[in-house]
Order: sequence, then structure tokens, then C-alpha cells
Amino acid sequence: MAYAAPITDIRFTLDDLGLLQRVAGLPGCEEISADLVDAILEEAGKLAGEVIAPLNLKGDVQGATFENGVVRTADGFADAYRAFTDGGWAGIPFDSDYGGQGLPWLVTVAAMEMFAAANIAWTLCPTLTIGAVELLAAHGSKEQKDTYLPKLVSGEWAGTMNLTESHAGSDLGALRSRAKPAGDHYLITGKKIFITYGDHDMTDNIVHMVLARTPDAPAGPKGISLFIVPKYLVNPDGSLGPQNDVRCLSLEHKLGIHASPTCVMAFGENDGAVGYLVGEENEGLHYMFTMMNNARMNIGISGLAVAERAYQQARIYARDREQFGPIIQHPDVRRMLMTMRAQIEAMRGFAYEAAAYLDIAKRHPDSDTREAAQTRVDLLIPVVKAWCSDCGVEVASLGIQIHGGMGYIEETGAAQHYRDARIAPIYEGTNGIQAIDLVARKVLRDGGAAATDYIDSLRSEIKSFEGTDVGDAAVLSSRLSAAVDALARATDWLVANGSANRASTLAGASPYLTLFGIVAGGAAMARAASGAAKGLKNGGDHSFYSAKLSTAAFYACHILPQADALATAITDGSEAVLAIDEDLL
Amino acid sequence: MAYAAPITDIRFTLDDLGLLQRVAGLPGCEEISADLVDAILEEAGKLAGEVIAPLNLKGDVQGATFENGVVRTADGFADAYRAFTDGGWAGIPFDSDYGGQGLPWLVTVAAMEMFAAANIAWTLCPTLTIGAVELLAAHGSKEQKDTYLPKLVSGEWAGTMNLTESHAGSDLGALRSRAKPAGDHYLITGKKIFITYGDHDMTDNIVHMVLARTPDAPAGPKGISLFIVPKYLVNPDGSLGPQNDVRCLSLEHKLGIHASPTCVMAFGENDGAVGYLVGEENEGLHYMFTMMNNARMNIGISGLAVAERAYQQARIYARDREQFGPIIQHPDVRRMLMTMRAQIEAMRGFAYEAAAYLDIAKRHPDSDTREAAQTRVDLLIPVVKAWCSDCGVEVASLGIQIHGGMGYIEETGAAQHYRDARIAPIYEGTNGIQAIDLVARKVLRDGGAAATDYIDSLRSEIKSFEGTDVGDAAVLSSRLSAAVDALARATDWLVANGSANRASTLAGASPYLTLFGIVAGGAAMARAASGAAKGLKNGGDHSFYSAKLSTAAFYACHILPQADALATAITDGSEAVLAIDEDLL
Repeated sequence: MAYAAPITDIRFTLDDLGLLQRVAGLPGCEEISADLVDAILEEAGKLAGEVIAPLNLKGDVQGATFENGVVRTADGFADAYRAFTDGGWAGIPFDSDYGGQGLPWLVTVAAMEMFAAANIAWTLCPTLTIGAVELLAAHGSKEQKDTYLPKLVSGEWAGTMNLTESHAGSDLGALRSRAKPAGDHYLITGKKIFITYGDHDMTDNIVHMVLARTPDAPAGPKGISLFIVPKYLVNPDGSLGPQNDVRCLSLEHKLGIHASPTCVMAFGENDGAVGYLVGEENEGLHYMFTMMNNARMNIGISGLAVAERAYQQARIYARDREQFGPIIQHPDVRRMLMTMRAQIEAMRGFAYEAAAYLDIAKRHPDSDTREAAQTRVDLLIPVVKAWCSDCGVEVASLGIQIHGGMGYIEETGAAQHYRDARIAPIYEGTNGIQAIDLVARKVLRDGGAAATDYIDSLRSEIKSFEGTDVGDAAVLSSRLSAAVDALARATDWLVANGSANRASTLAGASPYLTLFGIVAGGAAMARAASGAAKGLKNGGDHSFYSAKLSTAAFYACHILPQADALATAITDGSEAVLAIDEDLL
Repeated sequence: MAYAAPITDIRFTLDDLGLLQRVAGLPGCEEISADLVDAILEEAGKLAGEVIAPLNLKGDVQGATFENGVVRTADGFADAYRAFTDGGWAGIPFDSDYGGQGLPWLVTVAAMEMFAAANIAWTLCPTLTIGAVELLAAHGSKEQKDTYLPKLVSGEWAGTMNLTESHAGSDLGALRSRAKPAGDHYLITGKKIFITYGDHDMTDNIVHMVLARTPDAPAGPKGISLFIVPKYLVNPDGSLGPQNDVRCLSLEHKLGIHASPTCVMAFGENDGAVGYLVGEENEGLHYMFTMMNNARMNIGISGLAVAERAYQQARIYARDREQFGPIIQHPDVRRMLMTMRAQIEAMRGFAYEAAAYLDIAKRHPDSDTREAAQTRVDLLIPVVKAWCSDCGVEVASLGIQIHGGMGYIEETGAAQHYRDARIAPIYEGTNGIQAIDLVARKVLRDGGAAATDYIDSLRSEIKSFEGTDVGDAAVLSSRLSAAVDALARATDWLVANGSANRASTLAGASPYLTLFGIVAGGAAMARAASGAAKGLKNGGDHSFYSAKLSTAAFYACHILPQADALATAITDGSEAVLAIDEDLL
């Protein structure tokens, strides 16, 4: 159950797929050399493998606990967190103005993959803090930034997102928490559910980002404001003051990520919790959406991460376990391992590519290039989130299957990955919400322009790919081409039907997202194959690069052919989704 | 979280798909009237819904317990079991000579579906007993039958299967338990793992069917014998004697089916456990395989069952939960519910069809017809087991997804279905083993004759289907036709490559099984559509039958198109499965 950071594979994705090169020249990234990245990956991998990973199974068994009003994380979690902050990892992607490392997202996601693979439950704490930093950095006042950002960026304090209420999940517009103005602050009252790391013992303070309504706010999503509600109030000198009127009422009993405390939070049971308005009133949802791209990226990365972890464990078991010889020699076990491997490499290539676009959108000197990159990010992010999280579940399930009966026994650890992986398709907007976001906002709103632009770019990539000698992986060009055609066919259909028949297009949204992911993953595999071919030609590690070519060939024949079926489900199958009367369903 | 037995749907499958008609005329089934079946389904549904289902979540939370050497089932389990035996359910499919009801398997699986949907963990106890009865009825001596069968058929005693040892799972030939002759019996020693209901408090006695080696037995699978090892020895007058030298050492901590005690069993820690040889020495594996068809059928049925349970729960939630209106109105939620529904109807139609063939194989007066039916059963059973169990996991996962965040909380119950469902692809031979059985034994061994015969029968069915007016479901004929072509293409490829390249054919075994299942399910949907069309024409319930047509149309456009991709994975993708060196994988 050990985890060995897959540094060679990550380096391959960064280097041989040409991603690091695209980011390294950006303003602020001038010092990003291959050596620096090596050093970062080595250190992150060491922390992940040696400190955080050994807590994964233990944390699952012990879980976070709630006694006498106090939330305690599992043994060792706080120490690992200290090692994490001591290493400066809490601030990897953030401005050096606030103590961050100023590294690009491309490098950040590589580190986040390792931490999440080591321990998803543990990694959720820094993941949420990243979200809070993003929010404050984009929308906080100078004073708010000065007060909170240094402590959040260093990781001394943690951040949380307080969005969901029992009647307001996907529909945040329905939320009821209130915020009454009281001089320089507001008094917040309300109950929030599903608050990840809403309370815990890993940091001195917790900075809650809370959505609530002011007294005269309009109904629905346009009447929601965002507030900073610290667990302990902060004195003008930066020291901690009295405890705020906010507490954890209980922890949820969940299918997985047992070590991540999922809290029911009560705000303002007494006089009201002191909260500080971020930006303008009624702009809360808008602010929240600006940080969603990073949050969704990180959830997609966690799907990749758990898949890698499950793969490593299954591979070791398949070598050790003998049934008619080592089971790794059985073709069906190889097929499962190859499926895991191919999905992982496709996810990594694709998700890291999206991270590179995040960096270009943020840093490129040319505003047109920035804008084009942002459009691409907006298009890809829901796919990264949903497709990678779905693949994570699928791969973790294969991990159980390779273990046979032992996979069903909790002590083995394979089942934990399957349970932990299952949160990602739900978190940060369910995958159904991601699909609606993709189809309604990212594809239809501009009449298919961004999607078509992406499809065109894939077609030129395939053209240049066809000229490369990639051995076994040559089969990719025709298969990827057919899959891109399927994506184009589905896109055209959505655009043609979009305004006239919204229900039909939404009926096809999830198959479309999966289709998109399969194609995007296929494009990443083509880049990997080209990179591997070049590596071979340059005398690189023969076995390593040949295995990359074989994996690309596997993806071409086992995964890409599904694209056509998904396109058919969209173009021919949406009526059947809607045909049955609701009360007969 | 209630369960309402889907009696109308089950009746539809039995009647409108023409299955009951095929079985009702068989010898011994003359009294199987529609009224009788109605009465049986009603009673089984009542027991399942009112008595067994309410114990499901409670049983998961409490689990089976092991204290001071005693295994206790969860509260209420023993009472529910008494209600089950009092109703005569333990003996549904068995000869009246031993007190059974003598009902066909077609009706038995309908009842077993309801019990498993109510509570998979509970239902495993009678499921294992059915296996023991089958074994003894086929291979026991007259005396053994007289001693054990009446009590097993009545359910007063339970049966178990003791196969697996820590080094002998899929490869039973590796097992080490020993049996030393000692007069009229043998003394058994050895340790068995993963013994479902190996010990419990629901019956007065437990009859273990144990695989072990006699002193001079040949190595490997040909040296395994089968023994009856009762927990309490049975006196000549049928009363219970002293406890045998067998005990439970511990229970496993599992991902799901917490209420089903999975035991590590020790035989012969003192003088050796008294065991009675069944049939001949060294024929144990052969005997075991003769009862596998029923056991695998029942595991497939449990996949269907958990899917139905998950669907019912998700449907209720989707009606009640409001996010921008009741979520059942959202196209993507409808798509998920339709996927669940379509898979369930296809599974039920297909699995029940296989059960009808079991009855024909067992009862038909004409020996050629019996033989042909047995060939068909042998072909279909691995598909029923593996495809239905895989679909069960998929549907249970959709059940979680429809619940959003609530689906991840254990109290909701959706997560339990997902955990419970995950055992079925592992149980009774992993799905990988099923796929090998299908390809190597059922398709290749006769040069593709049985598979081709099946494919031909589907083609004639499609021809007659084309002449039927089925409204929306008309799309099925071209889609099913294309899917059957894909199955034929894959079958031909396997037959052509089978002997020359065994590894390649086995690399395609699992995709082939899934492809087979999708096609077989599609054929069942075509039968359902024909039946529904006839029902409409005869003035039957308009909404009910129309919904069946729409569901068939959904299956045609969303599930059947996957067939082609699976065929490609087999014909074009097997080299890629085997390409990478084992130590690089």
C-alpha cells in the first residue's frame, strides 16, 4: 500500500508532451528550469510518499472524530500538515507578495497530484485553503488581503468554503443564511452542511468563506453575498482574539474520505457570527465562480491521483499473487492494468494541458493570447473535473477487481480507493452540473465557436502526428481522427438543436462531456506518442518510451472507439431520455 | 429506503416476453398457472418488502459480529429467516420428495430477485444452502440425501461452500486441506477463507461442503474430493449429536455485505473434523462445477436485484428533492434514471430467459431439446453472472450520483447498494474467470458452434421483430442488428485466432463478455418491445406499455451502440494488451 510518486511519468508529461516548454517562457516563470522542476517534484514526492501516504489507511480506519464539540483529525495528520507548511507547499502557486512560491499551475498540479494520491482526505484541507486564497486574492480589499493572505498562503491558517445548505446544493440561489449589517462588519446566522474541514485541529485559525443574504437582497442567485468569517477573530496586530460565534454541530458518516471532517456548521447561534463582506453585496456567487476553475481542476486531479494510487497497488499485487502463475501474466489482468495505465496517462496529459492554459491565461504578455487561453480553460475545466473524476472511480474499481476476493477486504486498501474516489464526481458541482456547464455555457453560448476552435486544433495536431513514425501507436491517427469526427458531429448537433430544444441538448450533456474527455485524452496520448517517438530517436530509455507507444496504441483500440457510441447517444438518443412521463419513470 | 417488489415488471417479463409460456408446459410444471405465479410473487414480494428489506440498512450498520467464538447475525435476521422457512421459501425449486415446492427456476429467480433486492447480505444464507442442496441432490448417496436434504430443503439447516484457501482462489487446484480415511468417514484438517455464512445463529445446524485432498490424491485439480462436514454430527435417528471439530476463527472486515458473516474456518484443530465423502474420491471439482450454473445465475440475479433497489431509491429521491424544481425534471437526472431502468429491464429479460433454459434443460421430455437447452444455458450463464453483476455496480453508482452529496452520506443508504453490489463481480469466480469460461470453454471448444447458433437465433428474432409495429422502439431493429453483427465479427475473430494465439483471445475475453451481455440484453429489449406492442394492441395499460417501448428505444440508442467499440477492442486491441513487458507494466 506504499505510494511511490510517479516522477518519471510526470516528467514525461511535463517535458515530452511539451507542456513545461509552453509555460517556462511566461512572465514570472523565467526561472522555471528543468532542474528546478526536478527538485520540486523530488521533494513533493518525498513528502507525499514518506510522510502523507502512510497516514492514508490509518486515517480511513480512525476517521476524523467529534467529541465535546471538538473536531480532531486522525493521528499524524497535524504533524504531516506541519511538514507540509514547513516545506512551503501551502503557497506553491501564490504571489510572492504574500509569501507564496509563485510557481505556475502546471507545476502546482503535479505536486497536488502527488499529495492527493498519497492521501485524498488529508489533501482536501490544503485544497480548500487554495480556494480561499484565490477568492481573497481576486476580490478581497487590501486590508483583508493583508490580514488573511499571509497566514493562508503560509498554511498557518486554513480556509473553507461554506456554500451548501440542506435545501441549497446545486441551486445555491435557494440559500437562506442571513447577514445583518453591524457597523464595519455583518452578523451572520445560518446553518451550512457538507463543510469540508469546517473544523479541525491542524491550524491555529480557520477562515470560513461564507455565502449569505443581506436583509434587502433580491431573491435567488443575485442576492447572495460573500463573507469572511474567521473561527477566531483577528486583532489589529494580527494576533488571535476571541472565538467567533460559529461552531461545528456534527460530522457526517460518509462512504469514504473518512479522515476528512465533513461538518455541519452553525453560524450565529448566539449574537451572530462576525463576518466581513468581500467586495460588493450581492456579488457573492460571481466571486465564487471566479475561483471555481482552480477548484474543479484540483478535483479532477484527485481523480487522476486516486487512479495512480490504485494502479500502483494493483500492479504490485498482480506481480506477487500466484494463481496459475503470477496473475500479472494472465491476459485479462494485463488488460485491466493496461486500462488503468492508459486512463491515467490520458488523464494526466489532458489535465496538465489544461493547467498550462491556466498559466497562459494568467501570465501571457499578449492580451489576445491570454483571452484565447482563458476561453480554452473555460471549455476544458468541466471536462477535467468530471471526466477525470469518473475515470478515477472506474480505475479504482478495476483495482479492486485485480485483487479478487482480497479486494473486497478493507485491510487490503483497494476498497478505500474505490470509496474515496467516489466523492470526486459529486464534489464542486456534480458531474451532471459540469456537463450542463460545458454544453450550455461553454459550447452553446458562443454558438460552438470555442468547441469548434478546439476541434480544429486537434485536427491540425492529427495532421502533424500522421507524419511522425510512432510504431505501434500509428493506429492512433485514424482512431483519433474518427473520434474527433464524432465530437464534431455531436457538437454540430448540439449547436443546431441548442436554442430550439434545450431539454434535448441537456439530455446529451453528460455523454457529450464523456465523449469530449475521451477525445481530449486521445489527443494527449497522441502527443505522448510523438514525444516517445522523439525520445526513442534521441536514444532515450528504450523500454520506457516503447511502453508509452504501446499504451497509446491500447488507448486507441480500447477507449477511443467508444466515442462514436457516445455521439450516437447524443444525436439519436435524447428523445428517448425525455419520452417517459415523469410519474412513470 | 423502502423496497416495493416490482411485481408488475416481473410479471411483464414472465408473461409478455413469453417466458412463462415456454416453461409452463414442461413436465412437472403443469400446475404453473398465471394465478399460481401471481400468488407466489405476491407472497414473496410481501416477505421481501415487509420483513427482509427493513433489516438491510440496520444490518449494514450493525454487521455480523464475532465474540467469544460465536458468530451472531444482526438483529432481526434470524426472525426473518424463520418467516422465510415457515413460508416454504427455502425449498422453492427443489423436489417435493424432499419437501421442496418443485417450482421451475424461472419462478425461483423471480423470488430470489426480490429477496436479494430486499437484502443481499441476508439472502446469501439461503443462496448458499441452495448450492449445497444442488450438490447433494446430484451427487450424494441415498443415505446422505435422506439425512441432509429434508433439513436443508426446509431451511432448518443451512449449507455452505468451503472452497477457497489463502493460496487457492481462482486456482482451486492449489488447495491443501487434507482428508484422512477413518472407517466410514474421513478426518478433515485445513483452513478455509472467505466462507460466506460459515458460522451463524440462524439455523440449528450448518452443513459444510468442503473440498480437500485424500492422502494419495494426484496433485492439482484432479486430486480434490468433496466432503460433507456438518457443524453438529447427526445421530442415526436424525437428532443432533456432538459438535464437530470445526470452528470459525474470525470474520473479515469487508467493503459491503457487512451483515453477511465472511468466515475464516478451521477444520480439524483437534482430532480432525468428521467428513463424509460425496461420490467418488478426486471428483470434487467436477461435482462443484455441476452446481455452478445455479450459483452463478443467483449472483447475476443479485446484480439485477441491487440495481432495482438502487433505482427505486433514486427515483423517490429525484421526485422529492428540489433544486431548480424537482430534480427528476432535469434531463441529466432523467438520463441517469433511464439508464438504470433500461439496464434493469434488459438484465431481467435476459437473466430470466437463461433461467427458462435451465428449466427446459432439466425437464423437457425430448432429450435433444434438453441437450440444446443445456448448451444454451452453458453459453449464457457466465454472461448472466458477469454482465449483470457489472451492471449492478454501474447502476448503484448512478444511484449515488442522483443523490448528489446526500448519496455519499451513509445514512441515505445509496452508498450501501454501491458497496454491496461490488461483491458480485468477484463472487463465484471473478468476472475475468467468467469471461475465460465463456471464450475458452463455451465459444472456442466447439469451434464457435453454440455462439453461432445463438447469433443465428437472434437474427431470426430480429427479422420477425421488424414486422412488428413497436412505435418508438422501431429503432431497435437496426441498432440490434448492428450489435449482433459486431458480436458475430468478434466471435469469428476469436474462433479464427483461438487455437493459434490463446493469449490474444483471452485478452479479448472480458470485452467479449460485455459485448455479449449488451447484445443479449438488447434481444431481451426487442422481446419486451414486441410484448408491449401486443399489450397496447390488446388494450392493455397504455402508460405502462408505452414506457416499455420508450425504454427499449433508450437502450437502442444509449447502450447498443457500445457493441461496436467492444468488438473493435477484441479484434484490433488484443496485441496492445500484451505488448508491454510484464515488469514495465
